[in-house]
Amino acid sequence: MSLAFAWKSVREAANLPVFEPGWVWLVGAGPGDAGLLTLHALNALQQAEIVVFDALVDEAVLKLARPGAVIEYAGKRGGKPSPKQRNISLRLIEWAKQGKRVLRLKGGDPFLFGRGGEEALALVAAGVPFRVVPGVTSGVGGLAYAGIPATHRDINHAVTFVTGHMAGGDVPSTINWRALAEGSPVIVIYMGLKHLARIATELISAGRSVHEPVAIISEATTQNQLVLETELGRADADVRASGIKAPALIVVGEVVRLRAGLDWLSALSGRKLIADPLGASGDERERA
Amino acid sequence: MSLAFAWKSVREAANLPVFEPGWVWLVGAGPGDAGLLTLHALNALQQAEIVVFDALVDEAVLKLARPGAVIEYAGKRGGKPSPKQRNISLRLIEWAKQGKRVLRLKGGDPFLFGRGGEEALALVAAGVPFRVVPGVTSGVGGLAYAGIPATHRDINHAVTFVTGHMAGGDVPSTINWRALAEGSPVIVIYMGLKHLARIATELISAGRSVHEPVAIISEATTQNQLVLETELGRADADVRASGIKAPALIVVGEVVRLRAGLDWLSALSGRKLIADPLGASGDERERA
Repeated sequence: MSLAFAWKSVREAANLPVFEPGWVWLVGAGPGDAGLLTLHALNALQQAEIVVFDALVDEAVLKLARPGAVIEYAGKRGGKPSPKQRNISLRLIEWAKQGKRVLRLKGGDPFLFGRGGEEALALVAAGVPFRVVPGVTSGVGGLAYAGIPATHRDINHAVTFVTGHMAGGDVPSTINWRALAEGSPVIVIYMGLKHLARIATELISAGRSVHEPVAIISEATTQNQLVLETELGRADADVRASGIKAPALIVVGEVVRLRAGLDWLSALSGRKLIADPLGASGDERERA
Repeated sequence: MSLAFAWKSVREAANLPVFEPGWVWLVGAGPGDAGLLTLHALNALQQAEIVVFDALVDEAVLKLARPGAVIEYAGKRGGKPSPKQRNISLRLIEWAKQGKRVLRLKGGDPFLFGRGGEEALALVAAGVPFRVVPGVTSGVGGLAYAGIPATHRDINHAVTFVTGHMAGGDVPSTINWRALAEGSPVIVIYMGLKHLARIATELISAGRSVHEPVAIISEATTQNQLVLETELGRADADVRASGIKAPALIVVGEVVRLRAGLDWLSALSGRKLIADPLGASGDERERA
Protein backbone atom coordinates (compact mmCIF):
# COMPACT_ATOMS: atom_id res chain seq x y z
CA MET A 1 0.00 0.00 0.00
CA SER A 2 1.16 3.51 -0.69
CA LEU A 3 1.63 5.75 2.31
CA ALA A 4 3.17 8.51 0.29
CA PHE A 5 0.07 9.81 -1.42
CA ALA A 6 -0.19 13.54 -1.82
CA TRP A 7 -2.02 15.61 0.72
CA LYS A 8 -3.41 17.51 -2.28
CA SER A 9 -5.71 14.60 -3.12
CA VAL A 10 -7.03 14.55 0.44
CA ARG A 11 -7.60 18.30 0.38
CA GLU A 12 -9.68 17.90 -2.75
CA ALA A 13 -11.65 14.86 -1.59
CA ALA A 14 -12.41 16.44 1.78
CA ASN A 15 -13.07 19.84 0.21
CA LEU A 16 -10.72 21.63 2.60
CA PRO A 17 -10.88 25.40 2.30
CA VAL A 18 -8.24 27.89 1.21
CA PHE A 19 -7.03 30.14 4.02
CA GLU A 20 -7.66 33.66 2.74
CA PRO A 21 -5.45 36.57 3.84
CA GLY A 22 -7.01 38.73 6.55
CA TRP A 23 -8.95 35.86 8.09
CA VAL A 24 -8.69 34.35 11.56
CA TRP A 25 -9.39 30.65 12.04
CA LEU A 26 -10.20 29.54 15.58
CA VAL A 27 -9.09 25.94 15.63
CA GLY A 28 -9.16 23.16 18.22
CA ALA A 29 -5.88 21.25 18.38
CA GLY A 30 -7.28 18.33 20.38
CA PRO A 31 -5.93 17.15 23.71
CA GLY A 32 -2.25 16.71 22.82
CA ASP A 33 -1.41 13.81 20.51
CA ALA A 34 -0.77 15.38 17.09
CA GLY A 35 -2.63 12.44 15.55
CA LEU A 36 -5.82 13.85 17.04
CA LEU A 37 -5.62 17.00 14.95
CA THR A 38 -8.38 17.20 12.38
CA LEU A 39 -7.73 17.47 8.67
CA HIS A 40 -9.08 21.02 8.90
CA ALA A 41 -6.53 21.80 11.62
CA LEU A 42 -3.67 20.40 9.54
CA ASN A 43 -4.95 22.33 6.55
CA ALA A 44 -4.91 25.47 8.70
CA LEU A 45 -1.38 24.80 10.01
CA GLN A 46 -0.09 24.26 6.49
CA GLN A 47 -1.36 27.64 5.32
CA ALA A 48 -1.24 29.99 8.31
CA GLU A 49 1.39 32.72 8.45
CA ILE A 50 0.73 33.42 12.14
CA VAL A 51 -0.03 30.76 14.74
CA VAL A 52 -1.15 31.93 18.20
CA PHE A 53 -1.29 28.95 20.54
CA ASP A 54 -2.06 28.42 24.19
CA ALA A 55 -0.63 26.40 27.06
CA LEU A 56 -2.53 23.23 26.29
CA VAL A 57 -1.25 22.80 22.74
CA ASP A 58 1.46 20.14 22.47
CA GLU A 59 4.79 20.88 20.77
CA ALA A 60 4.29 17.94 18.42
CA VAL A 61 1.33 19.83 16.99
CA LEU A 62 3.30 23.02 16.36
CA LYS A 63 5.89 21.07 14.37
CA LEU A 64 3.25 20.68 11.67
CA ALA A 65 3.08 24.43 11.02
CA ARG A 66 4.42 25.50 7.68
CA PRO A 67 8.07 26.57 7.58
CA GLY A 68 8.46 30.28 8.19
CA ALA A 69 5.22 30.71 10.10
CA VAL A 70 5.38 33.03 13.12
CA ILE A 71 4.51 30.96 16.19
CA GLU A 72 3.35 33.02 19.15
CA TYR A 73 2.55 31.86 22.63
CA ALA A 74 -0.55 33.25 24.34
CA GLY A 75 -0.66 31.30 27.57
CA LYS A 76 0.83 31.15 31.01
CA ARG A 77 4.44 30.00 31.25
CA GLY A 78 7.17 30.02 33.85
CA GLY A 79 5.20 32.00 36.39
CA LYS A 80 4.63 34.91 34.03
CA PRO A 81 1.03 36.09 34.04
CA SER A 82 -0.96 35.11 31.00
CA PRO A 83 -1.84 37.82 28.51
CA LYS A 84 -5.28 39.21 29.15
CA GLN A 85 -8.01 37.81 26.93
CA ARG A 86 -8.58 41.30 25.54
CA ASN A 87 -4.93 41.57 24.53
CA ILE A 88 -5.00 38.25 22.70
CA SER A 89 -8.07 39.33 20.77
CA LEU A 90 -6.46 42.66 19.87
CA ARG A 91 -3.38 40.86 18.61
CA LEU A 92 -5.46 38.57 16.38
CA ILE A 93 -7.31 41.58 15.00
CA GLU A 94 -4.11 43.53 14.37
CA TRP A 95 -2.57 40.73 12.29
CA ALA A 96 -5.76 40.09 10.38
CA LYS A 97 -5.99 43.80 9.51
CA GLN A 98 -2.43 43.51 8.18
CA GLY A 99 -3.70 40.89 5.76
CA LYS A 100 -2.15 37.89 7.46
CA ARG A 101 -3.62 34.39 7.64
CA VAL A 102 -4.02 34.04 11.40
CA LEU A 103 -4.47 30.69 13.11
CA ARG A 104 -5.68 30.79 16.71
CA LEU A 105 -4.88 27.31 17.97
CA LYS A 106 -6.48 26.16 21.20
CA GLY A 107 -6.09 22.98 23.20
CA GLY A 108 -9.07 20.63 22.90
CA ASP A 109 -12.08 22.35 21.36
CA PRO A 110 -12.41 26.13 21.10
CA PHE A 111 -16.07 26.14 22.19
CA LEU A 112 -15.90 23.76 25.17
CA PHE A 113 -14.20 25.62 28.01
CA GLY A 114 -11.99 27.25 25.35
CA ARG A 115 -13.32 30.82 25.39
CA GLY A 116 -13.57 30.66 21.62
CA GLY A 117 -16.92 32.41 21.72
CA GLU A 118 -15.42 35.46 23.39
CA GLU A 119 -12.56 35.69 20.90
CA ALA A 120 -14.90 35.24 17.95
CA LEU A 121 -17.24 37.99 19.15
CA ALA A 122 -14.27 40.35 19.40
CA LEU A 123 -13.48 39.52 15.76
CA VAL A 124 -17.08 40.24 14.78
CA ALA A 125 -16.92 43.61 16.54
CA ALA A 126 -13.74 44.43 14.61
CA GLY A 127 -15.16 43.27 11.29
CA VAL A 128 -12.61 40.47 10.90
CA PRO A 129 -13.93 37.39 9.06
CA PHE A 130 -13.42 34.07 10.80
CA ARG A 131 -14.01 30.35 10.71
CA VAL A 132 -14.34 27.90 13.60
CA VAL A 133 -12.85 24.40 13.50
CA PRO A 134 -13.96 22.15 16.34
CA GLY A 135 -11.52 19.69 17.86
CA VAL A 136 -11.44 16.53 19.95
CA THR A 137 -12.15 17.76 23.45
CA SER A 138 -9.96 16.27 26.19
CA GLY A 139 -13.01 15.06 28.09
CA VAL A 140 -13.64 12.67 25.22
CA GLY A 141 -10.16 12.08 23.76
CA GLY A 142 -8.33 12.04 27.07
CA LEU A 143 -10.75 9.51 28.48
CA ALA A 144 -10.38 7.30 25.41
CA TYR A 145 -6.59 7.26 25.83
CA ALA A 146 -7.08 6.22 29.45
CA GLY A 147 -9.33 3.37 28.33
CA ILE A 148 -12.42 4.91 29.90
CA PRO A 149 -15.56 5.37 27.81
CA ALA A 150 -17.52 8.56 28.52
CA THR A 151 -20.68 6.46 28.23
CA HIS A 152 -21.42 2.75 28.41
CA ARG A 153 -24.95 1.42 27.95
CA ASP A 154 -25.05 -0.53 31.20
CA ILE A 155 -23.91 2.48 33.19
CA ASN A 156 -25.01 5.87 31.87
CA HIS A 157 -27.05 7.71 29.28
CA ALA A 158 -25.78 11.11 30.35
CA VAL A 159 -22.37 12.62 30.98
CA THR A 160 -21.60 16.10 32.25
CA PHE A 161 -18.49 18.11 31.48
CA VAL A 162 -17.77 20.78 34.04
CA THR A 163 -14.90 23.15 34.66
CA GLY A 164 -13.42 23.11 38.15
CA HIS A 165 -11.60 26.37 37.74
CA MET A 166 -12.50 29.96 36.99
CA ALA A 167 -10.42 32.83 35.71
CA GLY A 168 -9.86 34.04 39.25
CA GLY A 169 -8.76 30.60 40.40
CA ASP A 170 -11.88 29.74 42.36
CA VAL A 171 -14.17 26.82 41.82
CA PRO A 172 -17.21 28.20 39.98
CA SER A 173 -19.85 29.17 42.52
CA THR A 174 -22.62 28.80 39.99
CA ILE A 175 -22.21 25.02 39.74
CA ASN A 176 -24.99 23.07 41.39
CA TRP A 177 -22.98 20.05 42.51
CA ARG A 178 -25.93 18.48 44.26
CA ALA A 179 -28.03 18.44 41.09
CA LEU A 180 -25.10 17.19 39.03
CA ALA A 181 -24.48 14.44 41.56
CA GLU A 182 -28.11 13.36 41.23
CA GLY A 183 -28.45 13.78 37.47
CA SER A 184 -25.12 12.73 36.00
CA PRO A 185 -23.82 9.22 36.62
CA VAL A 186 -20.56 10.29 35.01
CA ILE A 187 -18.97 13.68 35.66
CA VAL A 188 -15.84 14.80 33.83
CA ILE A 189 -14.10 17.75 35.46
CA TYR A 190 -11.67 19.90 33.50
CA MET A 191 -9.00 21.81 35.41
CA GLY A 192 -10.33 20.63 38.76
CA LEU A 193 -7.23 19.25 40.48
CA LYS A 194 -6.75 22.24 42.77
CA HIS A 195 -10.30 22.02 44.06
CA LEU A 196 -10.63 18.24 44.11
CA ALA A 197 -11.11 18.00 47.89
CA ARG A 198 -13.99 20.44 47.83
CA ILE A 199 -15.61 18.91 44.74
CA ALA A 200 -15.41 15.41 46.24
CA THR A 201 -16.97 16.64 49.47
CA GLU A 202 -19.83 18.25 47.57
CA LEU A 203 -20.52 15.10 45.56
CA ILE A 204 -20.40 12.86 48.63
CA SER A 205 -22.72 15.21 50.54
CA ALA A 206 -25.13 14.89 47.65
CA GLY A 207 -25.19 11.13 47.98
CA ARG A 208 -22.36 9.78 45.82
CA SER A 209 -20.48 6.90 47.43
CA VAL A 210 -17.04 7.43 48.96
CA HIS A 211 -16.12 4.24 47.08
CA GLU A 212 -17.23 5.53 43.70
CA PRO A 213 -14.38 5.05 41.24
CA VAL A 214 -12.43 8.10 40.12
CA ALA A 215 -9.66 8.47 37.57
CA ILE A 216 -7.24 11.37 37.30
CA ILE A 217 -5.66 11.71 33.86
CA SER A 218 -2.78 14.15 33.57
CA GLU A 219 -1.30 15.36 30.28
CA ALA A 220 -3.88 13.24 28.50
CA THR A 221 -2.89 11.69 25.14
CA THR A 222 0.68 13.00 25.30
CA GLN A 223 3.84 10.95 25.84
CA ASN A 224 3.65 12.01 29.50
CA GLN A 225 0.10 10.83 30.16
CA LEU A 226 -0.41 9.48 33.68
CA VAL A 227 -3.56 7.85 34.99
CA LEU A 228 -4.35 7.46 38.67
CA GLU A 229 -7.26 5.26 39.69
CA THR A 230 -8.77 5.99 43.06
CA GLU A 231 -12.10 6.46 44.87
CA LEU A 232 -14.08 9.59 45.62
CA GLY A 233 -13.43 9.49 49.38
CA ARG A 234 -9.64 9.36 49.06
CA ALA A 235 -9.08 10.95 45.68
CA ASP A 236 -7.55 14.17 46.98
CA ALA A 237 -5.21 12.39 49.38
CA ASP A 238 -4.13 9.99 46.64
CA VAL A 239 -3.48 12.85 44.25
CA ARG A 240 -1.28 14.58 46.82
CA ALA A 241 0.59 11.37 47.65
CA SER A 242 1.17 10.59 43.97
CA GLY A 243 2.46 14.02 43.03
CA ILE A 244 0.35 13.96 39.86
CA LYS A 245 0.19 17.44 38.34
CA ALA A 246 -2.09 19.68 36.29
CA PRO A 247 -3.22 19.81 33.56
CA ALA A 248 -5.46 16.95 34.51
CA LEU A 249 -8.93 15.62 33.94
CA ILE A 250 -10.99 14.06 36.72
CA VAL A 251 -13.53 11.37 35.86
CA VAL A 252 -16.09 10.37 38.47
CA GLY A 253 -18.28 7.36 37.75
CA GLU A 254 -18.62 3.62 37.32
CA VAL A 255 -17.26 3.86 33.76
CA VAL A 256 -13.79 4.08 35.35
CA ARG A 257 -14.09 0.34 36.16
CA LEU A 258 -14.13 -0.41 32.43
CA ARG A 259 -10.50 0.61 32.24
CA ALA A 260 -9.49 -2.91 33.26
CA GLY A 261 -10.95 -4.08 29.94
CA LEU A 262 -10.41 -1.09 27.68
CA ASP A 263 -6.96 0.30 28.49
CA TRP A 264 -5.75 -0.33 24.94
CA LEU A 265 -2.83 2.09 25.31
CA SER A 266 -1.26 0.14 28.19
CA ALA A 267 -2.08 -3.08 26.33
CA LEU A 268 0.27 -1.87 23.57
CA SER A 269 3.01 -2.21 26.21
CA GLY A 270 1.81 -5.56 27.50
CA ARG A 271 -1.00 -4.89 29.98
CA LYS A 272 -3.40 -7.84 30.04
CA LEU A 273 -7.00 -6.71 29.59
CA ILE A 274 -9.99 -8.51 31.02
CA ALA A 275 -13.16 -9.04 29.00
CA ASP A 276 -15.64 -8.59 31.84
CA PRO A 277 -14.47 -5.59 33.88
CA LEU A 278 -17.93 -5.00 35.40
CA GLY A 279 -18.20 -8.61 36.57
CA ALA A 280 -20.55 -11.20 35.07
CA SER A 281 -23.93 -9.58 34.36
CA GLY A 282 -22.77 -6.44 36.09
CA ASP A 283 -23.31 -7.86 39.60
CA GLU A 284 -19.95 -6.69 40.79
CA ARG A 285 -20.82 -3.15 39.90
CA GLU A 286 -24.13 -3.33 41.74
CA ARG A 287 -22.40 -4.38 44.92
CA ALA A 288 -19.97 -1.48 44.83
CA MET B 1 3.11 28.02 -0.09
CA SER B 2 3.21 24.36 -0.97
CA LEU B 3 0.01 22.42 -0.54
CA ALA B 4 1.35 19.30 -2.19
CA PHE B 5 3.61 18.10 0.60
CA ALA B 6 3.70 14.38 1.19
CA TRP B 7 1.47 12.78 3.75
CA LYS B 8 4.53 10.70 4.63
CA SER B 9 6.13 13.69 6.34
CA VAL B 10 2.99 14.26 8.40
CA ARG B 11 2.86 10.58 9.36
CA GLU B 12 6.41 10.83 10.64
CA ALA B 13 6.01 14.14 12.45
CA ALA B 14 2.79 13.03 14.13
CA ASN B 15 4.15 9.56 14.80
CA LEU B 16 1.13 7.85 13.27
CA PRO B 17 1.12 4.08 13.79
CA VAL B 18 1.33 1.27 11.27
CA PHE B 19 -1.88 -0.74 10.99
CA GLU B 20 -0.81 -4.32 11.71
CA PRO B 21 -2.66 -7.28 10.16
CA GLY B 22 -5.10 -8.96 12.54
CA TRP B 23 -5.88 -5.77 14.42
CA VAL B 24 -9.16 -3.89 14.77
CA TRP B 25 -9.13 -0.12 15.12
CA LEU B 26 -12.26 1.47 16.57
CA VAL B 27 -12.25 4.93 15.10
CA GLY B 28 -14.48 7.98 15.43
CA ALA B 29 -15.24 9.59 12.07
CA GLY B 30 -16.58 12.83 13.53
CA PRO B 31 -20.02 14.25 12.84
CA GLY B 32 -19.98 14.25 9.03
CA ASP B 33 -17.68 16.77 7.36
CA ALA B 34 -14.65 14.77 6.16
CA GLY B 35 -12.46 17.68 7.27
CA LEU B 36 -13.29 16.75 10.86
CA LEU B 37 -11.59 13.36 10.56
CA THR B 38 -8.48 13.15 12.69
CA LEU B 39 -5.06 12.38 11.25
CA HIS B 40 -5.29 9.02 13.02
CA ALA B 41 -8.59 8.33 11.26
CA LEU B 42 -7.13 9.22 7.86
CA ASN B 43 -4.10 7.08 8.65
CA ALA B 44 -6.47 4.21 9.43
CA LEU B 45 -8.52 4.70 6.26
CA GLN B 46 -5.37 4.72 4.14
CA GLN B 47 -4.24 1.35 5.51
CA ALA B 48 -7.37 -0.65 6.32
CA GLU B 49 -8.38 -3.56 4.12
CA ILE B 50 -11.85 -3.78 5.68
CA VAL B 51 -13.94 -0.77 6.68
CA VAL B 52 -17.13 -1.43 8.68
CA PHE B 53 -19.09 1.81 8.99
CA ASP B 54 -22.41 2.81 10.49
CA ALA B 55 -25.33 5.00 9.53
CA LEU B 56 -23.85 8.23 10.82
CA VAL B 57 -20.67 8.14 8.74
CA ASP B 58 -20.81 10.48 5.75
CA GLU B 59 -20.03 9.26 2.22
CA ALA B 60 -17.36 11.94 1.85
CA VAL B 61 -15.45 10.17 4.61
CA LEU B 62 -15.59 6.76 2.93
CA LYS B 63 -14.10 8.26 -0.24
CA LEU B 64 -10.83 8.55 1.67
CA ALA B 65 -10.50 4.79 2.11
CA ARG B 66 -7.67 3.22 0.19
CA PRO B 67 -8.52 1.84 -3.25
CA GLY B 68 -9.57 -1.81 -3.07
CA ALA B 69 -10.69 -1.73 0.56
CA VAL B 70 -13.86 -3.69 1.34
CA ILE B 71 -16.43 -1.22 2.62
CA GLU B 72 -19.22 -2.80 4.64
CA TYR B 73 -22.30 -1.19 6.08
CA ALA B 74 -23.36 -2.08 9.61
CA GLY B 75 -26.25 0.27 10.25
CA LYS B 76 -29.92 0.70 9.59
CA ARG B 77 -30.94 1.60 6.05
CA GLY B 78 -34.12 1.64 3.99
CA GLY B 79 -36.27 0.08 6.68
CA LYS B 80 -34.09 -3.00 7.00
CA PRO B 81 -33.35 -3.87 10.60
CA SER B 82 -29.86 -3.09 11.74
CA PRO B 83 -27.48 -5.98 12.33
CA LYS B 84 -27.43 -6.97 15.95
CA GLN B 85 -24.51 -5.60 17.93
CA ARG B 86 -23.35 -9.17 18.59
CA ASN B 87 -23.24 -9.90 14.86
CA ILE B 88 -21.17 -6.81 14.13
CA SER B 89 -18.67 -7.82 16.80
CA LEU B 90 -18.48 -11.38 15.43
CA ARG B 91 -17.84 -10.02 11.95
CA LEU B 92 -14.97 -7.82 13.19
CA ILE B 93 -13.47 -10.78 15.02
CA GLU B 94 -13.78 -13.08 12.01
CA TRP B 95 -11.89 -10.69 9.75
CA ALA B 96 -9.23 -9.98 12.32
CA LYS B 97 -8.68 -13.72 12.78
CA GLN B 98 -8.19 -13.90 9.00
CA GLY B 99 -5.33 -11.48 9.40
CA LYS B 100 -7.06 -8.45 7.93
CA ARG B 101 -6.58 -4.85 8.98
CA VAL B 102 -10.08 -4.04 10.17
CA LEU B 103 -11.32 -0.48 10.61
CA ARG B 104 -14.53 -0.05 12.59
CA LEU B 105 -15.62 3.45 11.70
CA LYS B 106 -18.27 5.11 13.84
CA GLY B 107 -20.02 8.46 13.55
CA GLY B 108 -18.81 11.00 16.10
CA ASP B 109 -16.77 9.40 18.85
CA PRO B 110 -16.79 5.64 19.56
CA PHE B 111 -16.99 6.08 23.34
CA LEU B 112 -19.67 8.78 23.59
CA PHE B 113 -23.01 7.10 22.78
CA GLY B 114 -21.10 5.01 20.24
CA ARG B 115 -21.16 1.60 21.94
CA GLY B 116 -17.43 1.34 21.31
CA GLY B 117 -16.89 -0.08 24.79
CA GLU B 118 -19.14 -3.04 24.06
CA GLU B 119 -17.41 -3.80 20.77
CA ALA B 120 -13.97 -3.48 22.31
CA LEU B 121 -14.83 -5.86 25.17
CA ALA B 122 -15.99 -8.44 22.60
CA LEU B 123 -12.58 -8.10 20.94
CA VAL B 124 -10.84 -8.58 24.27
CA ALA B 125 -12.89 -11.74 24.90
CA ALA B 126 -11.83 -13.07 21.49
CA GLY B 127 -8.19 -12.16 21.98
CA VAL B 128 -8.16 -9.66 19.12
CA PRO B 129 -5.79 -6.71 19.63
CA PHE B 130 -7.30 -3.27 19.13
CA ARG B 131 -6.73 0.45 19.26
CA VAL B 132 -9.24 3.23 19.95
CA VAL B 133 -9.17 6.54 18.08
CA PRO B 134 -11.45 9.20 19.54
CA GLY B 135 -13.27 11.59 17.24
CA VAL B 136 -15.03 14.94 17.27
CA THR B 137 -18.38 14.19 18.87
CA SER B 138 -21.39 15.76 17.20
CA GLY B 139 -22.42 17.46 20.43
CA VAL B 140 -19.26 19.55 20.13
CA GLY B 141 -18.63 19.64 16.36
CA GLY B 142 -22.25 19.90 15.33
CA LEU B 143 -22.82 22.79 17.71
CA ALA B 144 -19.73 24.59 16.40
CA TYR B 145 -21.02 24.35 12.81
CA ALA B 146 -24.32 25.82 13.99
CA GLY B 147 -22.44 28.72 15.59
CA ILE B 148 -23.38 27.65 19.12
CA PRO B 149 -20.66 27.24 21.74
CA ALA B 150 -21.19 24.35 24.16
CA THR B 151 -19.96 26.68 26.90
CA HIS B 152 -19.65 30.43 27.23
CA ARG B 153 -18.23 32.01 30.38
CA ASP B 154 -21.18 34.32 31.00
CA ILE B 155 -23.66 31.47 30.70
CA ASN B 156 -22.44 28.05 31.84
CA HIS B 157 -19.61 26.14 33.45
CA ALA B 158 -21.24 22.78 32.86
CA VAL B 159 -22.78 21.05 29.86
CA THR B 160 -24.51 17.69 29.81
CA PHE B 161 -24.67 15.33 26.85
CA VAL B 162 -27.58 12.92 27.03
CA THR B 163 -29.07 10.39 24.66
CA GLY B 164 -32.78 10.72 24.01
CA HIS B 165 -33.12 7.27 22.52
CA MET B 166 -32.49 3.73 23.64
CA ALA B 167 -32.01 0.54 21.66
CA GLY B 168 -35.69 -0.30 22.07
CA GLY B 169 -36.76 3.14 20.84
CA ASP B 170 -37.82 4.50 24.21
CA VAL B 171 -36.48 7.53 25.98
CA PRO B 172 -34.12 6.20 28.66
CA SER B 173 -36.05 5.79 31.89
CA THR B 174 -32.92 6.13 33.97
CA ILE B 175 -32.42 9.78 33.09
CA ASN B 176 -33.18 12.17 35.93
CA TRP B 177 -34.46 15.10 33.87
CA ARG B 178 -35.32 17.12 36.96
CA ALA B 179 -31.76 16.96 38.27
CA LEU B 180 -30.34 17.71 34.82
CA ALA B 181 -32.70 20.66 34.49
CA GLU B 182 -31.41 22.01 37.80
CA GLY B 183 -27.74 21.20 37.33
CA SER B 184 -27.01 21.75 33.66
CA PRO B 185 -27.59 25.19 32.16
CA VAL B 186 -26.90 23.64 28.75
CA ILE B 187 -28.22 20.22 27.75
CA VAL B 188 -27.28 18.63 24.43
CA ILE B 189 -29.53 15.75 23.45
CA TYR B 190 -28.39 13.17 20.90
CA MET B 191 -31.06 11.24 18.97
CA GLY B 192 -33.87 12.93 20.87
CA LEU B 193 -36.13 14.22 18.09
CA LYS B 194 -38.75 11.49 18.48
CA HIS B 195 -39.14 12.16 22.20
CA LEU B 196 -38.76 15.94 22.09
CA ALA B 197 -42.29 16.66 23.38
CA ARG B 198 -41.76 14.49 26.45
CA ILE B 199 -38.25 15.79 27.12
CA ALA B 200 -39.43 19.42 26.86
CA THR B 201 -42.31 18.72 29.24
CA GLU B 202 -39.94 17.15 31.77
CA LEU B 203 -37.55 20.10 31.63
CA ILE B 204 -40.36 22.65 31.94
CA SER B 205 -41.88 20.77 34.90
CA ALA B 206 -38.48 20.97 36.53
CA GLY B 207 -38.45 24.73 36.23
CA ARG B 208 -36.89 25.56 32.85
CA SER B 209 -38.64 28.43 31.08
CA VAL B 210 -40.98 27.76 28.14
CA HIS B 211 -39.08 30.62 26.48
CA GLU B 212 -35.66 29.05 26.93
CA PRO B 213 -33.91 28.99 23.57
CA VAL B 214 -33.56 25.67 21.78
CA ALA B 215 -31.78 24.76 18.57
CA ILE B 216 -32.35 21.65 16.50
CA ILE B 217 -29.42 20.77 14.23
CA SER B 218 -30.03 18.06 11.66
CA GLU B 219 -27.30 16.36 9.61
CA ALA B 220 -24.79 18.48 11.46
CA THR B 221 -21.61 19.55 9.59
CA THR B 222 -22.73 17.95 6.31
CA GLN B 223 -23.81 19.77 3.14
CA ASN B 224 -27.41 19.14 4.27
CA GLN B 225 -27.10 20.71 7.72
CA LEU B 226 -30.27 22.49 8.84
CA VAL B 227 -30.65 24.53 12.01
CA LEU B 228 -34.00 25.42 13.56
CA GLU B 229 -34.09 27.97 16.36
CA THR B 230 -37.08 27.77 18.66
CA GLU B 231 -38.09 27.81 22.34
CA LEU B 232 -38.63 24.98 24.78
CA GLY B 233 -42.41 25.46 24.99
CA ARG B 234 -42.98 25.21 21.24
CA ALA B 235 -39.98 23.19 20.11
CA ASP B 236 -41.88 20.01 19.30
CA ALA B 237 -44.62 21.84 17.37
CA ASP B 238 -41.99 23.80 15.44
CA VAL B 239 -40.09 20.63 14.58
CA ARG B 240 -43.24 19.02 13.23
CA ALA B 241 -44.19 22.11 11.24
CA SER B 242 -40.70 22.41 9.77
CA GLY B 243 -40.40 18.80 8.68
CA ILE B 244 -36.84 18.69 10.03
CA LYS B 245 -35.65 15.08 10.24
CA ALA B 246 -33.33 12.84 12.24
CA PRO B 247 -30.43 12.49 12.72
CA ALA B 248 -30.57 15.65 14.78
CA LEU B 249 -29.08 17.21 17.87
CA ILE B 250 -31.14 19.26 20.30
CA VAL B 251 -29.48 22.05 22.26
CA VAL B 252 -31.30 23.57 25.21
CA GLY B 253 -29.82 26.65 26.83
CA GLU B 254 -28.99 30.32 26.63
CA VAL B 255 -25.89 29.56 24.53
CA VAL B 256 -28.25 29.22 21.56
CA ARG B 257 -28.62 33.04 21.61
CA LEU B 258 -24.94 33.37 20.72
CA ARG B 259 -25.70 32.00 17.29
CA ALA B 260 -26.61 35.52 16.15
CA GLY B 261 -22.95 36.42 16.67
CA LEU B 262 -21.16 33.16 15.98
CA ASP B 263 -22.87 31.57 12.99
CA TRP B 264 -19.67 31.67 10.94
CA LEU B 265 -20.93 29.06 8.48
CA SER B 266 -23.89 31.17 7.37
CA ALA B 267 -21.62 34.23 7.40
CA LEU B 268 -19.61 32.52 4.63
CA SER B 269 -22.77 32.91 2.54
CA GLY B 270 -23.44 36.48 3.60
CA ARG B 271 -25.23 36.36 6.96
CA LYS B 272 -24.46 39.48 8.96
CA LEU B 273 -23.29 38.63 12.46
CA ILE B 274 -23.82 40.85 15.49
CA ALA B 275 -21.06 41.42 18.04
CA ASP B 276 -23.29 41.52 21.11
CA PRO B 277 -25.81 38.68 20.80
CA LEU B 278 -26.52 38.59 24.55
CA GLY B 279 -27.23 42.32 24.67
CA ALA B 280 -25.03 44.94 26.32
CA SER B 281 -23.69 43.58 29.61
CA GLY B 282 -25.90 40.53 29.27
CA ASP B 283 -29.05 42.36 30.44
CA GLU B 284 -31.10 41.02 27.61
CA ARG B 285 -30.29 37.51 28.65
CA GLU B 286 -31.27 38.17 32.25
CA ARG B 287 -34.70 39.33 31.21
CA ALA B 288 -35.39 36.24 29.09
